[in-house]
Amino acid sequence: MPRIITMTTDFGLEDEYVGVMKGVILARAPNVKIIDLSHAIDRHNVRQAALLINSAYRFFPEKTIHLAVVDPGVGSNRKVVLLKVNEQYFLGPDNGVFALLLESEHFQTAYEVQCEQYYVTPVSSTFHGRDIMAPVAAQLSAGLDPEDTGPVIMPQALKKIAFAAAEINRLQSTITGEITGRDHFGNLLTNIEAESINSLCGHYKSRTRVTVRDKTIVGIQDAYADKNPGDLLALLGSRGFLEITVREGNAAAYLDAGTGDGVTVEMPKRQVASPGKAKNKNVTN
Amino acid sequence: MPRIITMTTDFGLEDEYVGVMKGVILARAPNVKIIDLSHAIDRHNVRQAALLINSAYRFFPEKTIHLAVVDPGVGSNRKVVLLKVNEQYFLGPDNGVFALLLESEHFQTAYEVQCEQYYVTPVSSTFHGRDIMAPVAAQLSAGLDPEDTGPVIMPQALKKIAFAAAEINRLQSTITGEITGRDHFGNLLTNIEAESINSLCGHYKSRTRVTVRDKTIVGIQDAYADKNPGDLLALLGSRGFLEITVREGNAAAYLDAGTGDGVTVEMPKRQVASPGKAKNKNVTN
Amino acid sequence: MPRIITMTTDFGLEDEYVGVMKGVILARAPNVKIIDLSHAIDRHNVRQAALLINSAYRFFPEKTIHLAVVDPGVGSNRKVVLLKVNEQYFLGPDNGVFALLLESEHFQTAYEVQCEQYYVTPVSSTFHGRDIMAPVAAQLSAGLDPEDTGPVIMPQALKKIAFAAAEINRLQSTITGEITGRDHFGNLLTNIEAESINSLCGHYKSRTRVTVRDKTIVGIQDAYADKNPGDLLALLGSRGFLEITVREGNAAAYLDAGTGDGVTVEMPKRQVASPGKAKNKNVTN
Repeated sequence: MPRIITMTTDFGLEDEYVGVMKGVILARAPNVKIIDLSHAIDRHNVRQAALLINSAYRFFPEKTIHLAVVDPGVGSNRKVVLLKVNEQYFLGPDNGVFALLLESEHFQTAYEVQCEQYYVTPVSSTFHGRDIMAPVAAQLSAGLDPEDTGPVIMPQALKKIAFAAAEINRLQSTITGEITGRDHFGNLLTNIEAESINSLCGHYKSRTRVTVRDKTIVGIQDAYADKNPGDLLALLGSRGFLEITVREGNAAAYLDAGTGDGVTVEMPKRQVASPGKAKNKNVTN
Repeated sequence: MPRIITMTTDFGLEDEYVGVMKGVILARAPNVKIIDLSHAIDRHNVRQAALLINSAYRFFPEKTIHLAVVDPGVGSNRKVVLLKVNEQYFLGPDNGVFALLLESEHFQTAYEVQCEQYYVTPVSSTFHGRDIMAPVAAQLSAGLDPEDTGPVIMPQALKKIAFAAAEINRLQSTITGEITGRDHFGNLLTNIEAESINSLCGHYKSRTRVTVRDKTIVGIQDAYADKNPGDLLALLGSRGFLEITVREGNAAAYLDAGTGDGVTVEMPKRQVASPGKAKNKNVTN
Repeated sequence: MPRIITMTTDFGLEDEYVGVMKGVILARAPNVKIIDLSHAIDRHNVRQAALLINSAYRFFPEKTIHLAVVDPGVGSNRKVVLLKVNEQYFLGPDNGVFALLLESEHFQTAYEVQCEQYYVTPVSSTFHGRDIMAPVAAQLSAGLDPEDTGPVIMPQALKKIAFAAAEINRLQSTITGEITGRDHFGNLLTNIEAESINSLCGHYKSRTRVTVRDKTIVGIQDAYADKNPGDLLALLGSRGFLEITVREGNAAAYLDAGTGDGVTVEMPKRQVASPGKAKNKNVTN
């Protein structure tokens, strides 16, 4: 059964960089399957890559190797690291691109990659994706034991970047979060988990209020089709987070909103709700 | 022999959506070959996707599975359908994206997909490409009998979208059609079949007149090289339809023309032609 | 072990052209691995494709087949050629796209492709990538002997395009070259080989002066990390050539520079250097 290697880079697709990495991989692991996650990460935007990989990896099978080459520090003394999380592997620079995985309950082990015998030589100072990460990923897919890539490194020793967590205020029945990015369609992604909303407001989603950029949306939907074309929606998106969208439109443009803008969720007041049911919800979820 | 799955979407390539669908597929069908047809369909442009798939599929082998995820109605009660056409399979929303295939002489069967046991769960209301179409395509490639995806559905019950057909007037020796799209180079595609032109005007293509946006081109060519750089050409294109092009230039920009603009083909008058030959042509073609 | 076919075209990714070529290939060679090098070559820019392929091919294994479809002369009488270079194969139009390979010490043989029995028929006059090159590449990957693609053709009979070579003046201790392109990040590529610089100035790189567009950079670096963000760098890039870059910035925009602009490298004057060491360098390199 062929192994899978995914790639996430800020290289774009016009140059030969991505193709050359694939050549290096296939020269060493001819049967591997290579899947592009994105090569359109904004230049050096480690945070954006971290979020994208975190959204994507759970749909891949065990033993998949995820390569992340968003690497502003290439050629400096930053490490190259290999993480094992949820029986999958993550290989890239130690610059925070895997910070969300370190916080995951599925985190298993991290290694500092030092297996120079597998590198493309001479190793350049500007393209470790090609010279270090691609050949090591290929060797892993071909059976190299992760323990043989280098010494175990404690997660505390790895570079972190902070990701704001949404704050749930159960007394006030509010969640305060922020926009974490936008997609091709102009849908705005947030850091507010669908699970939090379901847990806090349960059956009262239709009366929950979501505010972003001075606009308040009443009701949280599960599908675009719940509203009319052109309507602004607060939606429990397919990544498992609240998204702000315009049906068949562009919410980012409509709201002039982007990464870092605040998003507030206010549940309907308790006196309106059936207290018994609401309490049950809070307990069981 | 590995099966092929093609993908046609309006997702773009910056987000993880396409890669995640591939992860879902390969987790279930590790040996399948996945080919991107296009991820640059204009948002929700079902018609554009229908034309692209119709141009492309005949170059793929039997048993190929073509996935079309241009799906403005995701989350509504629109069906998911599987078509068998020319020994290939087409899987996507029932929104007209396969309308041209329903009209094909090679159409064989259609099924309404209901095999929920294969879906990614919980099924989201916003990303059926990932949760329904990708896993069902994977199962089909791995050997699932199409009859086991759901009940047969009559083609009359499927959603249609109208595609204007070119009108051939044999008395007037004209064909009236329209522009159906443009490509990366600015070449304008039409709905006028090369076969119609060959049948109607045969050897007289060099004197046939093609009019679009008040410009008249005399002569229909088979190759760019038949004209000089910068020249406007009427060309029998590689898709089997008339195309309007500028050699080494951009016809869409030059003519300020696009989808829906009319195109007229006028054959040379019969008195100029050898009647015997012309009649033969009309009979045999 | 599956063979690899790479693709380099000016087709873009919005249309079905690339996917259709892959369909034609996989229909004939189901196990081949297809790798995209670039589909973003500027339209008809044979020179740009030639440089990209020349940078990329050395990272692929023996027997890889590189397809180049940048083909302004399609439909004219230009030949289709197959080159064998360094135990790899290169298939494309005879328009100079392989000119740099003809000059390589690794050049082995060239064939004029005439094996019509493998073509997709009817062969169009506008898309030989699909009708000639894709099926022939597939047959080669499936075991067709290159000698059976057509007669050997002398390299002198192939179309050349001139690539300016950097001029090394050992008396003046200067190298005069030019910019050959730019990448996704705005890094400027030159035709000045890292080897020439290492040979000429050896240990004195930190005092070497590089001039482009009236800006002079003192010192040649090996890594971005050797300078601060925003700094202009002269860098020995990962392709083995001098590059002009701005750390975490865009050199092409900053300098308003592009293809054809001159680049001058001036070594430090000899009286400053230790003559013994410098002479050794010149002799041994």
